[in-house]
Amino acid sequence: MTSSSSSYVPARVVADLRALAENTGGAEGSRRLCWTPEWLKARAQFRAALSDLPVEIETDEAGNLWAYLRGARPETLVVGSHLDSVPKGGWLDGALGVMAGVELLRALAAEGTPPITVAVVDWADEEGARFGRSLFGSAAVVGTLDVEAARSLVDKEGHRLDQTVAEHGVDLATIWRSSSRLQNVKAYVELHIEQGPILESKGLGICTVTGTKGIERERLVFRGQAAHAGTMPMEMRRDTLLAVSRYALALAEIGRRHQGVTTTGHVQCWPGVVTAVPGETRVTMDMRHISAESLAAMYAEMKQAAHDAAAAEGCTVGFEPIFRIPPMPFHPKLLDAARASVKEVEGHDVELPSGALHDASEIARVIPTVMIFASSIGGLSHTKEEDTPEAHLRMAADAFHRTCRRAMALIAEGAV
Amino acid sequence: MTSSSSSYVPARVVADLRALAENTGGAEGSRRLCWTPEWLKARAQFRAALSDLPVEIETDEAGNLWAYLRGARPETLVVGSHLDSVPKGGWLDGALGVMAGVELLRALAAEGTPPITVAVVDWADEEGARFGRSLFGSAAVVGTLDVEAARSLVDKEGHRLDQTVAEHGVDLATIWRSSSRLQNVKAYVELHIEQGPILESKGLGICTVTGTKGIERERLVFRGQAAHAGTMPMEMRRDTLLAVSRYALALAEIGRRHQGVTTTGHVQCWPGVVTAVPGETRVTMDMRHISAESLAAMYAEMKQAAHDAAAAEGCTVGFEPIFRIPPMPFHPKLLDAARASVKEVEGHDVELPSGALHDASEIARVIPTVMIFASSIGGLSHTKEEDTPEAHLRMAADAFHRTCRRAMALIAEGAV
Repeated sequence: MTSSSSSYVPARVVADLRALAENTGGAEGSRRLCWTPEWLKARAQFRAALSDLPVEIETDEAGNLWAYLRGARPETLVVGSHLDSVPKGGWLDGALGVMAGVELLRALAAEGTPPITVAVVDWADEEGARFGRSLFGSAAVVGTLDVEAARSLVDKEGHRLDQTVAEHGVDLATIWRSSSRLQNVKAYVELHIEQGPILESKGLGICTVTGTKGIERERLVFRGQAAHAGTMPMEMRRDTLLAVSRYALALAEIGRRHQGVTTTGHVQCWPGVVTAVPGETRVTMDMRHISAESLAAMYAEMKQAAHDAAAAEGCTVGFEPIFRIPPMPFHPKLLDAARASVKEVEGHDVELPSGALHDASEIARVIPTVMIFASSIGGLSHTKEEDTPEAHLRMAADAFHRTCRRAMALIAEGAV
Repeated sequence: MTSSSSSYVPARVVADLRALAENTGGAEGSRRLCWTPEWLKARAQFRAALSDLPVEIETDEAGNLWAYLRGARPETLVVGSHLDSVPKGGWLDGALGVMAGVELLRALAAEGTPPITVAVVDWADEEGARFGRSLFGSAAVVGTLDVEAARSLVDKEGHRLDQTVAEHGVDLATIWRSSSRLQNVKAYVELHIEQGPILESKGLGICTVTGTKGIERERLVFRGQAAHAGTMPMEMRRDTLLAVSRYALALAEIGRRHQGVTTTGHVQCWPGVVTAVPGETRVTMDMRHISAESLAAMYAEMKQAAHDAAAAEGCTVGFEPIFRIPPMPFHPKLLDAARASVKEVEGHDVELPSGALHDASEIARVIPTVMIFASSIGGLSHTKEEDTPEAHLRMAADAFHRTCRRAMALIAEGAV
């Protein structure tokens, strides 16, 4: 079970990642933006890495790329993540989980036919960096992609999502057929970097991930009265920026009080000039918590805080939905598998919820799922500075491999 | 002195303003954007209104349009304001002061040669709505226009200021020559709408203006650390939007405490997306007070509040100048002239400082100056909704005329 004598070689995962960075990165960071030639180049490397193995490589109706190592039985363990990156992104985000999966197929193939089938998947357009719709491929497979909403999306250059994906063989009208990929899938394991500073702050390299936090994301529109900055007395103003300031501080306090996270990331004032009191201010709201109850409480308090802040400045506030996803706790048996593996590799039982969304957030809706995190230096991601100590990458691949072996055993036993 | 029997007809001022609105306005408001054909159309109406009078009409090296009614002596009273408007602006802002001046020349010309010279001026580009440099023509005449800074200004369509004004005969290299227009000028009187709600809130139509408030205008740049909205714990953030929220509330309190005005009109966050803690936030700061001492105190408190707010969130803050102008108290003798006129017309001695800048702010630097305000319905200006009750417009023109007569007497006596 501990596979210390297996042919899984974490150093090869690091070597594959470095080759990918050479191939698709540069001084400005990774360039594997989805649905572009650079992304296809990354996928070509993925195919080439598997070319000597007895695997079947297929693309599904949503653009996801699958590599199957058929086992004695059809029950399937899926592992993977995504090769696409944000523009000027990091070398590890997504790629780590895919390359760790490639090494898993190498190790298993070297041992002959596995007892169950194992697949590595490269999910399409996890980042949503061009069209604003993240988790594209994994949501499509699970059936949670809003196809009509996706159809009308346009990137900065004016390219339509539907036309762009069509150039890659994806027809939005038949994308639902990709769900057949989940037949026989009994477990999903994803290795990813933390993209946050917590492991580093604890002096650790890896941990078990308990689930992904639920998210409420909205746009708040505060409405007051635009006025001349010189002629409107303070006491007669209905200043939406002051209402937003009260609200933003209250929102942060709500996040702290519930041990969740809350963020005001974007602010826009109208008319938005130095000489005018803002008569309308729009802000984005993002809040996350691993507990559905806490998230619901935070959401209710946010609404009250916004109304109170608006009223204090003679303004009103309205709410527009952007996105929401419930907390996705991972599977108890797979969590035990991950915990045992982390304990073997780094000798502790630290576990964290993921504050970031991952393809695992979608897959966990319908398939027993677990994740392992590797630390992030400075907590940085989505930037060329994204990095992880190589020793942590090797530990992470090792713990991932051990978790996969345990998941295969659970599947073989019919326990998941 | 009270000129109740004079030929000055306030109703003609209103009629001229309505004709101008017909000529250069519409459903979306006034379109007299400076250096455009619509603005030239307004100037053509100004010329036409004076065509039957014995006046000399000249354009100076800064693009200001002057109409001189020569008197027995060269000492000169100048009155006026500006015909240019912001895009979709109001019908009264600037135009009221010019048309009240036209009527003054009509009344004086009907009486024969006046004892001193009287000129009406239409200052060029008061609004600065295209290139961001307001008070263009009046600053040029006074010598406070930063010609090198103006040279590089570009409008939204990419037109350069220097090329645009050249099409109207203005050469930035020789614009300083326009200062000769102030030779012999002994007083300046400007009638304008309040553009604020104070007169309306007092149930009044007109008042004396004591001066224009001093302004400090800066850009503040708060710097912290951009981070992922899901993975960065609240207690490890360096969130610039939270720093800005603390600062904006403190700035408003500073304005209230000193009975001045303070405004945060524009906010921009980087990266400025719903999923990121803002690592940098830029805000504009505008503060105004009629007392130089109070303005200086407000400015010092603003800087301290910004540093305190930044420090409270682990951020730093820097300051970039945008614009500043000291308070411009008007001339004591001309203030007395205005007070007496307002008293005669509306029977009270209410006076206000102007929170907005006017061409009078520039002229008052070097010439004895005073202004009269007419009320603004709802305090609105720079919008098509800008309006003033017609009775107030007529009272304002009447008080303006009486003030001009008193100013002419002061000049004739050598008292200003």
